[in-house]
This record gives sequence, structure tokens and C-alpha cells, in this order.
Amino acid sequence: MTTKEALLDYVLRLADNNMILGQRLCEWVGHAPELELDIALQNIALDLIGQSRNLYAYATDIEGKGRTEDDFAFLRDCDTFRNVLLVEQPNDDFAYAIVRQFFYDVYNYLFYRELQSSKDARLVEIADKSLKEITYHIRFSSEWMIRLGDGTAQSNAKMQDAIDELWDYVGELTLVNEVDKQMLKEGLGVDLDKIRPLYYQKVTDILAEATLQQPKYESFQKGGKDGIHSEYLGPLLAEMQWMQRAYPGAEW
Amino acid sequence: MTTKEALLDYVLRLADNNMILGQRLCEWVGHAPELELDIALQNIALDLIGQSRNLYAYATDIEGKGRTEDDFAFLRDCDTFRNVLLVEQPNDDFAYAIVRQFFYDVYNYLFYRELQSSKDARLVEIADKSLKEITYHIRFSSEWMIRLGDGTAQSNAKMQDAIDELWDYVGELTLVNEVDKQMLKEGLGVDLDKIRPLYYQKVTDILAEATLQQPKYESFQKGGKDGIHSEYLGPLLAEMQWMQRAYPGAEW
Repeated sequence: MTTKEALLDYVLRLADNNMILGQRLCEWVGHAPELELDIALQNIALDLIGQSRNLYAYATDIEGKGRTEDDFAFLRDCDTFRNVLLVEQPNDDFAYAIVRQFFYDVYNYLFYRELQSSKDARLVEIADKSLKEITYHIRFSSEWMIRLGDGTAQSNAKMQDAIDELWDYVGELTLVNEVDKQMLKEGLGVDLDKIRPLYYQKVTDILAEATLQQPKYESFQKGGKDGIHSEYLGPLLAEMQWMQRAYPGAEW
Repeated sequence: MTTKEALLDYVLRLADNNMILGQRLCEWVGHAPELELDIALQNIALDLIGQSRNLYAYATDIEGKGRTEDDFAFLRDCDTFRNVLLVEQPNDDFAYAIVRQFFYDVYNYLFYRELQSSKDARLVEIADKSLKEITYHIRFSSEWMIRLGDGTAQSNAKMQDAIDELWDYVGELTLVNEVDKQMLKEGLGVDLDKIRPLYYQKVTDILAEATLQQPKYESFQKGGKDGIHSEYLGPLLAEMQWMQRAYPGAEW
């Protein structure tokens, strides 16, 4: 794989992660238990989709073939999406939304902090900008982990269910694939081996404070980074892309 | 009706207008023809829902019976919603979303500008805060009216269809009902007779610039302000309220 190909793949992964999670969060609008929460989740969704837009714009420049940011978001098929499986998992209930967000935020925070040392100036710029927002996200989701985990027996049980189910998708976050190896070697990408222990330390700390149990199993689902997705991505993309596909290239 | 009852009804109308339109806009997330637009519509939705939250909080204080802002948003039935019919109309296509937004923004802008002269300090405060956002909304929707109206033959035709259909709901915006009369008399509310000519002047100007035709008919649908809604509000509320109704009072 050329550097350019690997970089494009890498940037699309970052963009797709944010876009897909942003879509999932938006499905919650009007469904959170409180207006305040509803608005907070919308704000986070908007941050994520805004970040993905910057990344798709960069992908456009890397590829240099005239595909626009909209083409990347709306006209690619499922198997070219590079997001991790975690972000495409459905909103079973509010506990899922919070747990998924927390697992992602911790990774996202550590990842972008590290990305600030990339040799790629544009990635550094995107990382700087994103980190301000992600710092808020991780505070928000950590607080809700604790509030709901250390809340009522019912809220604790729901959170534990969500953790037990979503734990399957945590390992992939810091899994190193071929593209990660190449990006790291060229000084462009993040050393996932370095952030992995920090990731689990933070997760362990918050789960303990939230009086929630960390699952013991270490095997996990993977494939998203290489375009092999769960059954949940297809319907999400169908919903997200129908308009652009119904009116391809329509200027209006 | 006591002043307090009328004021509560009035404030709920303002809150419901923003909440319902915010929900309708959120249904667009990921469906706008461009990422940029998608993000702009999400921002507007978030502004509207944020404004509605301030208004529901005020309703809580007016009523003083312990109903929370969330109770007002999520636990009221269809016939107690006071929003105008325009905002509950469905998203037939992108042209509808823009035209509905434009018709609403012009009204909203003129209304809140006038509300700044209310004797009610809290309403003045809300108006001041909202106007900053609405000023952006009206610029956005006006620009898109012109861009799409004065765009391709196809975009013009779609916009004209949306206008012809939604025109039915424009009249209600400045229709004076009993609550409006009482609020005006007590120096708390807005003189809709005063803003009506300004409203139609602005609409006429933008439609002309957009090379779109203003419908001739003057009869219109009404009832929303008094709780008589179209068939579209029920399903929207069912979708928006299911979680709070499924778990009433659930703290988690």
C-alpha cells in the first residue's frame, strides 16, 4: 500500500468513526430521559459530525480525484466504511448510548492527544481542534457512567448489561492493523500499543468509581477497520444515504 | 382565563413551536443533500430545542405545581400542545424543510423582536437570547429560498410545490386567538396585527427575489394554537415521548 493509500484509509476511518457515531446519537434526539441530556447528546453528535466533515474534506485532498466530502459520506458502500464496530452498535436503551459513548470518548481522547505528534500538519490541526470538544465529551460520559452506575439498583443493572454486551467491541479500538503499522512507521499515525494501557486504566478507574464490573473476557469482535461490519451498519447507511442515492449528483 | 393561565398557555405555545420544529429538523440529520447543510440544520434544531427548554422551565415556574420542564415536553397529550400547524408538517423533501423553516423564521424573528417590549422580564430575557440565534436562522433559510428558487428548473419546481402546499399553514402564524388578545391587553404579549403586514412584506420580497410565486388564496388551516392538530402531530409525539411514557418518573 502506498503512503497515500494508507493515509486515505486512515483518515476515512477517523471520519467514519465520528460520522457513524454521530448518526447513532442523533437517533436519540427527543428520546433521552431529560431535555438537558437530550441537548447534550445533540451537541456531542454535532461535534462528531463536524469533525467528520473536516476529515472527509482532508480525504478529498489526499485522494485528489474530485470526490467531494459529500461523496465520501453519502456515496460509499458498507464495505468501504472503516469505522470500528463499536460505533455502529444500535441504541438498545439509554445505558447503551452512554456506555458506547464513554468507551469511544476515552479512546478518542487518547488517540487525538497522541495524533498531535503526527508529522502530518493537517492531522495535527484537526487533532488540536477536535480535542477541545472531546475533552468535554469524555467529562460528560464519565459523569454519566458514575451517576447511573452508582445510582439506583435498576440503573446499575442496565449499565452493567450495556457494558457486558458492548465490551465485545472495546478491543478493536486499540487493535493494530496493517494501516496502523504503516502510519506509525512513517511517523504519521498513532502508536496504539502505547495508548492501550492508558485506555484500560481509565476505563477501570471509572468503572470502579461507578461501582460497575469490568468484564473478564479478552476476546473481541473485530473487522470494522478493514471494512467487515456487523449487520447494523447496512441499515444505518441505507437510512443515511437514501437521499443522495435517490438523486445522485442532484445540484439542488 | 386568569392572567396566569393565559401566560402559561402562551409560553407553552412558544415552547411547543420550537420543540416540534426542532424534532422535525432532527429527522433530517444525515439526509440533507450536503454535509454542510446537514450540520447547519442540526445547529438550528439545537437552537430551537434549547430555546424550548428555557420556555418549558419558565412554564414550570408560572404553573408552580411541580411539573418539570421534562413533564411539559414529554408527558403532555396531543390536544394540550399549542404549536401552530406549520411546524408539525412532515418532511416531504428538502424543499419542504427549507420553506417551512423560512415561513417560521420570518414569523419567529418578528415575534421575538416585538416580545422584547413585553412587561414580563423573563419573556424579555428569553427574547433577547433567542433573537441572536433567530437572526442567523432567517439569514440561512432566506439564502436557501433564493438559491433553490432561483436555481435549476427542477429546484424551482420543488420549491414552488412546497410553497403551494405549506401556504395553507402560514395564516395561522399571525392569527389572533383569545390568549393573544388577553396577553396583548395586559402588556405581556405581542401585537400580531402589527407584525402581520411586516411578515407578508418580507415573504413577498424573498419569494420575488427567489423567482417563486406567492399563492393567491387567503384561507388557511388553523387550530394548533388551541390544541386542534393535524394528523401529523400524534405520531411525532408518540416517537418523541415513548421513552418517558414507558418509564414514567424513572430517575435513571
